[in-house]
Amino acid sequence: MKTLTKEIWMEIPKRRAIVSIHHQIEQLVTESGISDGLALINAMHITASVFINDNESGLHADYDRWLEQLAPFDPGTDPDSGGYLHNRTGEDNADAHHKRQIMGREVVVAITNGRLHLGPWEHIFYYEFDGNRRKRILVKMIGE
Amino acid sequence: MKTLTKEIWMEIPKRRAIVSIHHQIEQLVTESGISDGLALINAMHITASVFINDNESGLHADYDRWLEQLAPFDPGTDPDSGGYLHNRTGEDNADAHHKRQIMGREVVVAITNGRLHLGPWEHIFYYEFDGNRRKRILVKMIGE
Amino acid sequence: MKTLTKEIWMEIPKRRAIVSIHHQIEQLVTESGISDGLALINAMHITASVFINDNESGLHADYDRWLEQLAPFDPGTDPDSGGYLHNRTGEDNADAHHKRQIMGREVVVAITNGRLHLGPWEHIFYYEFDGNRRKRILVKMIGE
Repeated sequence: MKTLTKEIWMEIPKRRAIVSIHHQIEQLVTESGISDGLALINAMHITASVFINDNESGLHADYDRWLEQLAPFDPGTDPDSGGYLHNRTGEDNADAHHKRQIMGREVVVAITNGRLHLGPWEHIFYYEFDGNRRKRILVKMIGE
Repeated sequence: MKTLTKEIWMEIPKRRAIVSIHHQIEQLVTESGISDGLALINAMHITASVFINDNESGLHADYDRWLEQLAPFDPGTDPDSGGYLHNRTGEDNADAHHKRQIMGREVVVAITNGRLHLGPWEHIFYYEFDGNRRKRILVKMIGE
Repeated sequence: MKTLTKEIWMEIPKRRAIVSIHHQIEQLVTESGISDGLALINAMHITASVFINDNESGLHADYDRWLEQLAPFDPGTDPDSGGYLHNRTGEDNADAHHKRQIMGREVVVAITNGRLHLGPWEHIFYYEFDGNRRKRILVKMIGE
C-alpha cells in the first residue's frame, strides 16, 4: 500500500473567500505514485470547508450570499436578536461554524490510472469562513 | 489490495428526481471480490447528489419541496429579484448547484464480509437536480 | 492491509442531543494497529448524523435552534400547514430526516502515525435527531 500525507497551509487575507486548491491536489496525486486509490481532502479547521463544485465566479458569489441568508454573520450573543450563544466565548464566528456544515468538511475523490478521477466540471475548492489567519488543509491518499 | 472502478450512466427524463442505485452498488461489491474495505459513490456532475436516506416516496417529495424553499429555481440573473449571478453564463441551473450542497456529493460506505455494511434503513440514491441529459456516477471500491 | 470494524451502540434518552464519540474513536485507532490509513465513522440510522466541529456547548445549542428553523419538527402530515408527507407512514420524524442532511451522515478521517490526524479543534460527535431508542454508529478503518 502506498500513502501520502500532506498539510497545506492557507492564509486568506479576508474573512470569507473561495480558493481553488485543485492543481495542488493534482500534483500531490502524481507525487504519491498511487495509481488506484482514494484521496481525502479536508479542512483541519472547523470554520472552513473543502468542497467540489463549479469554477465559476458568479456561482461563488451566489453561494456567499446564500450562506449569509441561511446563517447570517452576527457578532451578538443573544439568539433572540440574531446572535449566537457560541459568541459568548468571546468569538464572533458562530456563523462560520454553521456555514461550514452546509458546504461540508471534506471530499473523498477516487484516484484512477494515477490521476484524480473526476467529472468534466468537478473542481476542488477551499472555502474560508473566518480568515485573516493561518489555517491548514489535510490531504491523505491511500492506494497502490 | 483489490480495487473496482465503475462509471454508471444516468439519464433522467425530467429536471429533478430521486432514483435508487442501491442494488447496482450491491452488485458491484460482489463483482469487486472485496471482503473488507471502503466504497466511494459520488456524482460526477456538480448539479446532482448521491445520498443515503429512507426509501420512502413521501419523504422524497418532502425533500423536493424543502430544497425548493432553501434554494428556489429561478432562471433570472438578478439576485435582487430571486435570480442568480451564475445564470449570466447562459445556464438556468444555479439552484441545482445550491441544492446539491445540501444533499451532498458523495457517500463513503464500509464493505464487511463481502457486503455493503449498512444500517437497516440505509438506502443509496442518486438525486438529479438538472436532468434531461446523460450524466455519470462514479463507484470506487478499495480493500482486500 | 489492516482493517477494523466496530459498531457502537447509542441510546440517547431524549429526542435530540449532541454526544461526543471522540475518545472512543481514538481508542479504536489504537486497537486497530493501523499506522497510516483512513477511518470512516457513520450513523447507521437515517435520523442521526456524525459530524466534526467544536466541542462547545453554546455552539451545540445554536445548531439545535438553527436546524429547528431550517427543518421544524411537526408531526402533521399536511405540507401546507407545516407537516410532512413522510409522517403519513405513521412516523413523526420527517424533520429528523431533513436535519440529518444538513449535518451529514459520515466523516472520513485520516490516520497518521497511529493516531487520528485532526486539526486543533476538530472533535467527533454523534447527533441524535430522533432518540429514545437504541441506534448504531459504524466505524471502519483501513490502512497498514
